[in-house]
Amino acid sequence: MTQRAGGRQGRQARRARPGKAVVGPGLPGGSYKPLSDRDVERIHETALDLLEQVGMANPLPILKEHALAKGCWLDEHNRLCFPRALVEDVIAAVPRTFVTLGRDPKYDHENAAGRVHFGPGGDSISTLDVDEHRYRPSTIIDVYDFARLIDRLEHVHDFSQVVVATDIADLRSADINMAYAAMAGTTKHIVLSPNNARHLDDLIHLMDLVLGGEGKHRERPFCSAGGCCVVSPLAYGDENSEVCLAATRIGAPVWAVMAPQTGATAPAALAGTLAQVTAESLAALLLVQLVVPGHSMAFGPWPFVSDLRTGAFTGGGGEQAVLAAAAAQIGLFYGLPTSVGAGMSDAKWPDAQMGFEKGVTVTAAALAGAKVSEACGMMASLMGCSFETMVIDNDMLGMIQRLLKGVEVSDETLSFEVIKEVVRGPGHYLGHPQTLSLMETEYLYPKLADRTSQAEWQDAGSADILEAAKTRVHKILSAHYPAYIDPATDAKVREHFKIHLPEEAMRLGNGRW
Amino acid sequence: MTQRAGGRQGRQARRARPGKAVVGPGLPGGSYKPLSDRDVERIHETALDLLEQVGMANPLPILKEHALAKGCWLDEHNRLCFPRALVEDVIAAVPRTFVTLGRDPKYDHENAAGRVHFGPGGDSISTLDVDEHRYRPSTIIDVYDFARLIDRLEHVHDFSQVVVATDIADLRSADINMAYAAMAGTTKHIVLSPNNARHLDDLIHLMDLVLGGEGKHRERPFCSAGGCCVVSPLAYGDENSEVCLAATRIGAPVWAVMAPQTGATAPAALAGTLAQVTAESLAALLLVQLVVPGHSMAFGPWPFVSDLRTGAFTGGGGEQAVLAAAAAQIGLFYGLPTSVGAGMSDAKWPDAQMGFEKGVTVTAAALAGAKVSEACGMMASLMGCSFETMVIDNDMLGMIQRLLKGVEVSDETLSFEVIKEVVRGPGHYLGHPQTLSLMETEYLYPKLADRTSQAEWQDAGSADILEAAKTRVHKILSAHYPAYIDPATDAKVREHFKIHLPEEAMRLGNGRW
Repeated sequence: MTQRAGGRQGRQARRARPGKAVVGPGLPGGSYKPLSDRDVERIHETALDLLEQVGMANPLPILKEHALAKGCWLDEHNRLCFPRALVEDVIAAVPRTFVTLGRDPKYDHENAAGRVHFGPGGDSISTLDVDEHRYRPSTIIDVYDFARLIDRLEHVHDFSQVVVATDIADLRSADINMAYAAMAGTTKHIVLSPNNARHLDDLIHLMDLVLGGEGKHRERPFCSAGGCCVVSPLAYGDENSEVCLAATRIGAPVWAVMAPQTGATAPAALAGTLAQVTAESLAALLLVQLVVPGHSMAFGPWPFVSDLRTGAFTGGGGEQAVLAAAAAQIGLFYGLPTSVGAGMSDAKWPDAQMGFEKGVTVTAAALAGAKVSEACGMMASLMGCSFETMVIDNDMLGMIQRLLKGVEVSDETLSFEVIKEVVRGPGHYLGHPQTLSLMETEYLYPKLADRTSQAEWQDAGSADILEAAKTRVHKILSAHYPAYIDPATDAKVREHFKIHLPEEAMRLGNGRW
Repeated sequence: MTQRAGGRQGRQARRARPGKAVVGPGLPGGSYKPLSDRDVERIHETALDLLEQVGMANPLPILKEHALAKGCWLDEHNRLCFPRALVEDVIAAVPRTFVTLGRDPKYDHENAAGRVHFGPGGDSISTLDVDEHRYRPSTIIDVYDFARLIDRLEHVHDFSQVVVATDIADLRSADINMAYAAMAGTTKHIVLSPNNARHLDDLIHLMDLVLGGEGKHRERPFCSAGGCCVVSPLAYGDENSEVCLAATRIGAPVWAVMAPQTGATAPAALAGTLAQVTAESLAALLLVQLVVPGHSMAFGPWPFVSDLRTGAFTGGGGEQAVLAAAAAQIGLFYGLPTSVGAGMSDAKWPDAQMGFEKGVTVTAAALAGAKVSEACGMMASLMGCSFETMVIDNDMLGMIQRLLKGVEVSDETLSFEVIKEVVRGPGHYLGHPQTLSLMETEYLYPKLADRTSQAEWQDAGSADILEAAKTRVHKILSAHYPAYIDPATDAKVREHFKIHLPEEAMRLGNGRW
């Protein structure tokens, strides 16, 4: 190979090649440790003290039954107290890895302690209309459109109910329709948040219908379900406890996240919030594992922050960044697949505030090593979601994955011979074979972020990234009407369930985008 | 103290109190380690190999003289080669800490390995005019205005030549005038970038005049100077080598930063870039330490990134984030005060791209533990600066410092008793004495970032953070005309030097803002 092998032409040829994946799901985090080892142990010990000496209020009867048989007791306040040995045993017995399946196997992702995935989180009640400069109530069509969009965003690893269909009042119907809209829009793994355990049979029926036969979902449970089964501080919630147990019947990993808020439902002292959220996350493990031993689930500490001037939730501060990172570290300490929340900007508009609040919090959480939920799309302190924000965040998540990928250090990459050769030769690395060979594997090129010169930017109309985001959203949503549910199947689904998503809205050229 | 001590009234009283500093300069980083210990050692070893076997081109005669006397040699390419034992000795002998002095002692900051400070970096040639939606050439008035602005930004720890006075063609006059404009605008530490070593006498004379007597600057050298003394790959630059040596005469720490760019002036392999930039940064230490032993200076590896599709510098990618963090880790390995570059967004507008590119890169660099330069104000791949961006970034830097501050873990903060009390009592922490006592010490409240509700935001005009930034810039720059150089002194300065900054521009009510 000559030194300028390929030269300009070669570079252009390489440029034209479809890029190999420079980054992907499951990159290892954990190289950032906000807490000392001793601090993690003290938080763990305090969490065990809380579970043993303060206990959990309001356990489901079935949990109480299993727990009492295992040596737990009810204290004088009728709270269920867990002996530390039992808690340690349950932590040790939870599966260390699980796979979240996509309906398309290319989206199957292995989850394990420290592995970083990005999910959108959500359940917000409004969607930003950028043209009208305001939020409007989210609808079932938004759920479908967000699913179609995420289906095309390379750095968003699963779909969850980013917005709630506020146009469907009946909660059972809402659960079915949100699952349907998601399945119609994406073949990535789908995370459901059923309102009630009684809806699980319907949801499983829907999955079976979509896959073409009773029991089919068990072969490839591409949806998972769960809920926030704890009402902070330290009480179980009935409905979501039931949802978490019923969700095991899908056969997919159960999700359960705890979101106590500093100074409101958790102590203002961050260490206290971490102790409490750890106890609550262990209480969720105990709930599922004592009743359905060995079922896969993620550890889900999502400590949230209050702005103590107003008491309102705030997701965009440094306190949120360090809490999410510390929660990830605690999950890594337990060796469990872990999910934390970050990316919850307080900005109402896709502006610089949104960018830096998400950039700082998601980076901190990802470097600490966990699945990061709420990582994209969310705005307005979790009250709203935005299509344009989703595609901007996708770029950011690519960048953060490139950061996570780190630096490969080997004799070859240390480049001693390359440097010597360049120093004694041409004096620059532009056409060096190493440069050409690494340009598509070592470097990630953003989809939206503008790297043009000032003059080019000005000539092109001095646009901000929102314009590029609008263009990408339009391009995807006006064209990507996937046939993930074929017409015959769709007809069967619509026979069995009242589907609110109009068939018209699912057809190319309907004028919606 | 009763549980609701003070209640709403107490909370309001606390709110009204001037906030104690929740964060400040010099917070410890280093809890993020992108490289393994072994990888750092291999990079170090490769850097020593490079200095010994490839050497540095173009050393100053005085450096050559000192180096040859210490056992260095010139190889057959006339390159100065450094034996590894000498390099190790020099690393061991460089001062481990130094103080950067402000003209006002409240801005004195101690620098040491792993300590995080934020500086603006700069030397960009244009300033963003947000009203006109374009960049214009920067002027000496911009230098003065940026100095006044930074003088009032609590999370920007020093001032440097963020923009160049392109309206002063003569380089000597430009150097003097930029120093004057900086001194007139701020009493924070000032980092100068003289164009030529011959200007140092003038600059020292100027400092003495401002402080009121010959030799006065030596008592409190509130300016430092230096330059990029290496032309990558692995050659010294004449003029900046001379500047770095001459700068020692100020009596302040010398700065010297190396900015080789991947795939252009450094290998495309990131590990190779780190090896080369480490060798170059050690070469800068060798230059100053062999000629002026024991003079304080920072280790300055600033690896930069090319977009290999175009060859252009790009500051906003994940590659930049991990390189800056790795460079910080290498400085920590040497135990030296270290400066790295991050925050160099490619965005031309203060938009979401700017926010996330700065958020990710500055967070990574700061968590790895170094002074972060270019941390605020810089836009357009270092080609432009913006007043509005500077105040937005100030908010971001506060947030990142809150992240760095971490979580204090103690018996008290773990809050076992507080949690028990709340769980058995009111069920929430809102009025708890702990909450009230921590609201001004544990939590940082942003100056600009909007935490209002969607409805409040919409009622207030659906503004993005740029509007708030414009307001803050206007508020500071229309009012803050400090008398840091009193009229009599100013007259003397103007007698000695041709000062381009019009006196009119330095007066309140001149209508400029």
